[in-house]
Amino acid sequence: MTPPDRPTLGVGLIGHAFMGAAHSQAWRTAPHFFDLPLRPDLRVLAGRDADRVAEAAGRLGWAETETDWRRVLERADVGLVDVCTPGDTHAEIAIAALEAGKHVLCEKPLANSVAEAEAMAEAAARAAARGVRSMVGFTYRRVPAIGLARRLVAEGRLGRIRHVRAAYLQDWIADPAAPMSWRLEKDKAGSGALGDIGAHVVDLTQYITGETLTGVSALMETFVKERPLPASAGSLSGTAGEGMGQVTVDDAAVFLARFSGGAVATFEATRFALGRKNGIRIEVNGSEGSLAFDFEDMNVLEFFDGTEPAERAGFRRIIVTEPEHPYVAAWWPAGHGLGYEHGFTHQVVDLVTAIAKDEDPAPSFADGLQVQRVLDAVERSAAADSVWTPIAAQDPERTD
Amino acid sequence: MTPPDRPTLGVGLIGHAFMGAAHSQAWRTAPHFFDLPLRPDLRVLAGRDADRVAEAAGRLGWAETETDWRRVLERADVGLVDVCTPGDTHAEIAIAALEAGKHVLCEKPLANSVAEAEAMAEAAARAAARGVRSMVGFTYRRVPAIGLARRLVAEGRLGRIRHVRAAYLQDWIADPAAPMSWRLEKDKAGSGALGDIGAHVVDLTQYITGETLTGVSALMETFVKERPLPASAGSLSGTAGEGMGQVTVDDAAVFLARFSGGAVATFEATRFALGRKNGIRIEVNGSEGSLAFDFEDMNVLEFFDGTEPAERAGFRRIIVTEPEHPYVAAWWPAGHGLGYEHGFTHQVVDLVTAIAKDEDPAPSFADGLQVQRVLDAVERSAAADSVWTPIAAQDPERTD
Amino acid sequence: MTPPDRPTLGVGLIGHAFMGAAHSQAWRTAPHFFDLPLRPDLRVLAGRDADRVAEAAGRLGWAETETDWRRVLERADVGLVDVCTPGDTHAEIAIAALEAGKHVLCEKPLANSVAEAEAMAEAAARAAARGVRSMVGFTYRRVPAIGLARRLVAEGRLGRIRHVRAAYLQDWIADPAAPMSWRLEKDKAGSGALGDIGAHVVDLTQYITGETLTGVSALMETFVKERPLPASAGSLSGTAGEGMGQVTVDDAAVFLARFSGGAVATFEATRFALGRKNGIRIEVNGSEGSLAFDFEDMNVLEFFDGTEPAERAGFRRIIVTEPEHPYVAAWWPAGHGLGYEHGFTHQVVDLVTAIAKDEDPAPSFADGLQVQRVLDAVERSAAADSVWTPIAAQDPERTD
Amino acid sequence: MTPPDRPTLGVGLIGHAFMGAAHSQAWRTAPHFFDLPLRPDLRVLAGRDADRVAEAAGRLGWAETETDWRRVLERADVGLVDVCTPGDTHAEIAIAALEAGKHVLCEKPLANSVAEAEAMAEAAARAAARGVRSMVGFTYRRVPAIGLARRLVAEGRLGRIRHVRAAYLQDWIADPAAPMSWRLEKDKAGSGALGDIGAHVVDLTQYITGETLTGVSALMETFVKERPLPASAGSLSGTAGEGMGQVTVDDAAVFLARFSGGAVATFEATRFALGRKNGIRIEVNGSEGSLAFDFEDMNVLEFFDGTEPAERAGFRRIIVTEPEHPYVAAWWPAGHGLGYEHGFTHQVVDLVTAIAKDEDPAPSFADGLQVQRVLDAVERSAAADSVWTPIAAQDPERTD
Repeated sequence: MTPPDRPTLGVGLIGHAFMGAAHSQAWRTAPHFFDLPLRPDLRVLAGRDADRVAEAAGRLGWAETETDWRRVLERADVGLVDVCTPGDTHAEIAIAALEAGKHVLCEKPLANSVAEAEAMAEAAARAAARGVRSMVGFTYRRVPAIGLARRLVAEGRLGRIRHVRAAYLQDWIADPAAPMSWRLEKDKAGSGALGDIGAHVVDLTQYITGETLTGVSALMETFVKERPLPASAGSLSGTAGEGMGQVTVDDAAVFLARFSGGAVATFEATRFALGRKNGIRIEVNGSEGSLAFDFEDMNVLEFFDGTEPAERAGFRRIIVTEPEHPYVAAWWPAGHGLGYEHGFTHQVVDLVTAIAKDEDPAPSFADGLQVQRVLDAVERSAAADSVWTPIAAQDPERTD
Repeated sequence: MTPPDRPTLGVGLIGHAFMGAAHSQAWRTAPHFFDLPLRPDLRVLAGRDADRVAEAAGRLGWAETETDWRRVLERADVGLVDVCTPGDTHAEIAIAALEAGKHVLCEKPLANSVAEAEAMAEAAARAAARGVRSMVGFTYRRVPAIGLARRLVAEGRLGRIRHVRAAYLQDWIADPAAPMSWRLEKDKAGSGALGDIGAHVVDLTQYITGETLTGVSALMETFVKERPLPASAGSLSGTAGEGMGQVTVDDAAVFLARFSGGAVATFEATRFALGRKNGIRIEVNGSEGSLAFDFEDMNVLEFFDGTEPAERAGFRRIIVTEPEHPYVAAWWPAGHGLGYEHGFTHQVVDLVTAIAKDEDPAPSFADGLQVQRVLDAVERSAAADSVWTPIAAQDPERTD
Repeated sequence: MTPPDRPTLGVGLIGHAFMGAAHSQAWRTAPHFFDLPLRPDLRVLAGRDADRVAEAAGRLGWAETETDWRRVLERADVGLVDVCTPGDTHAEIAIAALEAGKHVLCEKPLANSVAEAEAMAEAAARAAARGVRSMVGFTYRRVPAIGLARRLVAEGRLGRIRHVRAAYLQDWIADPAAPMSWRLEKDKAGSGALGDIGAHVVDLTQYITGETLTGVSALMETFVKERPLPASAGSLSGTAGEGMGQVTVDDAAVFLARFSGGAVATFEATRFALGRKNGIRIEVNGSEGSLAFDFEDMNVLEFFDGTEPAERAGFRRIIVTEPEHPYVAAWWPAGHGLGYEHGFTHQVVDLVTAIAKDEDPAPSFADGLQVQRVLDAVERSAAADSVWTPIAAQDPERTD
Repeated sequence: MTPPDRPTLGVGLIGHAFMGAAHSQAWRTAPHFFDLPLRPDLRVLAGRDADRVAEAAGRLGWAETETDWRRVLERADVGLVDVCTPGDTHAEIAIAALEAGKHVLCEKPLANSVAEAEAMAEAAARAAARGVRSMVGFTYRRVPAIGLARRLVAEGRLGRIRHVRAAYLQDWIADPAAPMSWRLEKDKAGSGALGDIGAHVVDLTQYITGETLTGVSALMETFVKERPLPASAGSLSGTAGEGMGQVTVDDAAVFLARFSGGAVATFEATRFALGRKNGIRIEVNGSEGSLAFDFEDMNVLEFFDGTEPAERAGFRRIIVTEPEHPYVAAWWPAGHGLGYEHGFTHQVVDLVTAIAKDEDPAPSFADGLQVQRVLDAVERSAAADSVWTPIAAQDPERTD
């Protein structure tokens, strides 16, 4: 749907694993369904291993490759850098890209520490002053049901928010025999379930409610403290040989929280909820209405309208596939649901649109920093007998 | 199904509001469906107001009435006293009844304070030595799906328990215009959502897992701090006239917890979850399997068997209406579900059976005390910046 | 709730198997929860075997017994006869009872043939002229969610009805090794799944829509044509010894139908839907709204309001436990669901109320006859290459 | 994932409406996720209007355009013709393409009449002898949950099939004010709900069970017999001006059926099921197990294993997103669901693989013909008082 005469936006992607594949599909697909003001050009893919990046570029649809991400930043044909590497490299790459005048899309969590995230947010603010844009990749915001949830809250249909219950439930390492990976190393991943998936529900609940978390009380746990090293240690820098590796991140994090409007919340992030595969569950109860979402049924939003007479009130199962719903008009007829990857496509749409409009896209690096501060407060509370740990008010740069 | 020649157990019921009606239906119904070793005789109903208790006795099926509960304890034709009064009177009545040699069934929560509950548990221990039995009324244990849940855990089908998430969600005072009642006064009710409904999920999760809570971190909230007094102040002792009354209990309590086997848990009890009417939700994730229950679909237990091959694994919706399921063989054919009140009938069955066998029924007053200690720890943690608050190990008298 | 000074209605129950037990629980329970104009007196239970009826009377709460149902009709202390025998005896007993001036409640299906049902409806009409009332026991009408469904249709919330899909799914004889029973013999049962459970969905869909079926096209099947005789042949008259018995009724019946308002329908009744225990599923689509019900979640009615904007429209899951819902105010707080047996209690309420008001209760024998005519048309269509088979218009005596 | 050195398969697509867009997305996407033996080249898009086809080609990713489909067949750079036009043109285009030596993918239903479908199947047989392949586009077969359903049946996990209940429920013309379109004209569309959506559930149930339909008894209805002409009559050949147009197809079709193994079935296809958006519901009950699917929750298959002990048996909700599931390994981690369009991508995979292997892809034109015969029998039965109408046994060319 993007006309061929639209100006081009050259994209350089750093990283080609799971997230790299998802982002590539989004860059490829968005212009076919949406009328983008700029036509993405999948110009260059960067990865450390020349053979592997070449293979990936062919598979994922990128025109050229680089083995040093710094070369991507030097290219005149690249206008935007998309950072899909592990969290320990986000700050360095993203800041350098912004300083090189490239727009940046950075995967979540923004960084592995508050200090890094602060540096990134500062770099983003400086860049924005020069018209260079940045966004952090909380893609689940772009699921139509989540967009509808936010809209209903913004319209006042929930009234005052009183309760939030949020859980991100996976089970992929519930088996103690599941092998080590970089996601289980604190050096690489920053944290475990907390940063990887807990960050999503922190962002989503703040996005839906339009409020921020003001404090937490937390508990973290590593159920399985060592795991077999993978047959090929290639994916684990710093480890060698056979035997067992130390899990240095949390398997699960649970926390209580307050929202800025006074709501009381429970949060849970775990990779040990056997049988739950990607269960992002969010419920919000307000004085006028309630919402419930579960990613395992991602095209549905449940909504309770408390203004209905009790005789006919009930949670209604809205199939979020109508043209009236966020992003949906570009796709298929009602009832023909979308999948996981569509959130990434919508992310491209929103990012490219903001860039063309010379506006700051959301969620900004400042938003990513704020989520990082929540994660940090969770870790500090868990380390201090779960004591209540306030979270500093949001930065003025926060976009929503 | 109870033969007419069975010995009689004279029952005296104190209180005739919601719980009194539920208990009466149970006492009336149990012998028709179960072969009880003792035939309950609904002998006497006690209430303070002579007219109202007379009306209730006729309605609920009790032979005689008393206006002073002490008279019930003096009657030779009463072998068991069933305490269905507000929590502030439990200790006095139950202890006196036990000392009078009457078996006691006491509604939950056992008492309004740990001190009271301790006195009750001590009285129960003394009475048990004389063959006088006592039980606390955590009836939801008697829902067949809950009994099945416990059985599956006990059989090892969940393996090691890693996560519990429990919530008891109601919404009956979500509207700030809902009037005051004794349940909102700390003097009468001890606490709000915490003791009234939170106590149930504490008991249920301990019952299902066979483990106890070892510590909590909590947050409590009263969203609506004053409410209109009811038109008739009759139900509110100590308040008079029109205008507003102070809500002195929690509207909601949330807490993190650990179980004795190391599991990490979140708990929530609220009367402000708009649209949730009696949502008792319990999920348990173990190393081998998982369970999920919601009282809003009370005849169903969901079970995930992690030993199934991934291709065919999934949460199975067990309709807990088979003769193989707890209590069910006495009722209807498969698929013909039970309702809320059946838990009370099953409670009568278990209680009468234990009395006849000269065994201590479960849950004992010691169990009730242990739940009280959890509630107390929740309150103390909430009052101390949510700091982690350990719970003393269970008493030896604890029955399960 | 029925005051003790209300006039008594002496009840005589014929039959004490599954239905006898359910009716007994209803007669016992109704006056405790509802303010009945007449107080039921469980006077006499009739059964052929003296020992068994004596045991049943004790268990089910009946004062006296008879071994000949005719004796029940002669008793001055019996004002109402409740017929819970197999279908082949309904006509004889019910007609005799009506002629003896007794009100009659007769289990469904009304009879095993149209001719019998016609005779019964005629007897009922004659009796009604003398103030003697009769009702056929389509108890599922009394499930609150079904009552609400009818109310929503009557209020016009569905607009013009276009589709009905109804299925009654059980699986209790899916196993070919399940033994013979009288329910599998045409002589006793009249038909198989069709009359036993199909009759219910015919009645329910007509009740909900307020329309009648005008024609059908049908297919019937007996998957397992012979089955092992039961260890004790007691329950099977006419069969003797060991070995196999012939199944002479349908295992499953499916049919297409039209309703009087033009709606198109599919119906299914089967005892071979493995995994479905008592799945009474009814969906109705109208020009303005839709409904869906499944007895496996019996406290819920799903309602789609087509007048809502598409953005927020969805099937809402109404938990039918509010005081505003049919029958519910007499029971428990919202969210505390009812069970299978409550429909029978509500049936007693409606029947006794109608008798006291000197009105004809619904569903009448004429209604039962009309259902019988539908079943007969189904059998005739199935026997004639599924050809469309019209159903005569309803009789003027039909009550709704 | 398709290496760049794979041989090219030039594709010509005829039609660029809804189906054209879905097929284009599939042709573009398949090689990025699957290792195809041939690399699709989106060579040419054909449409009658030069401007519109040019716009569509840009939007959908096609290199060149034609305004006469015959020109596509003449091109040496086209090896496969993909037919996405209305049903009245399928036969002419597909036969010509096969005769021109082009492989053909033809949207369903194969044709608007049995005669046309026979001619197409004959042409396909002749072409196959020359190594030219053809396939009809029943894409819902490629939903992973459907593939798993077929696998479970094929493994014998359902035992002998006894019941099938299938419905395809939409509501997009439930409003009488919805305008005319070619889909409501018999000339263009052949039939209404029957051919458009009923064809899918006929194919799916035959595919899952591995059996064919042997006869039907049917009822068809057009609820709204005339509709407003659209503002622009462009999409409606043969109609002009304002006012109302005649609906000449069915709004709904319901039928009973038998499968070749003896199972009894109900089918429904309607566009008037208010609130159901794309509800493809299929249930299968066998002697050993049961299955249930609803496209409104498309990543889930429910499976009841009747060999489980009753205590733990229940329909399990399999989230069909594991690498073990059909097609899934190429996509995302477990729990990250797919959407509607993925079925088209899988169709491309299966088609291209068969072509490269020199095998006949499934479903073949003979399979499409067999579905056409079922639809024809439905129409004949509906026109003949619903009388049972046998369906000729399948052709030897049928591929599965």
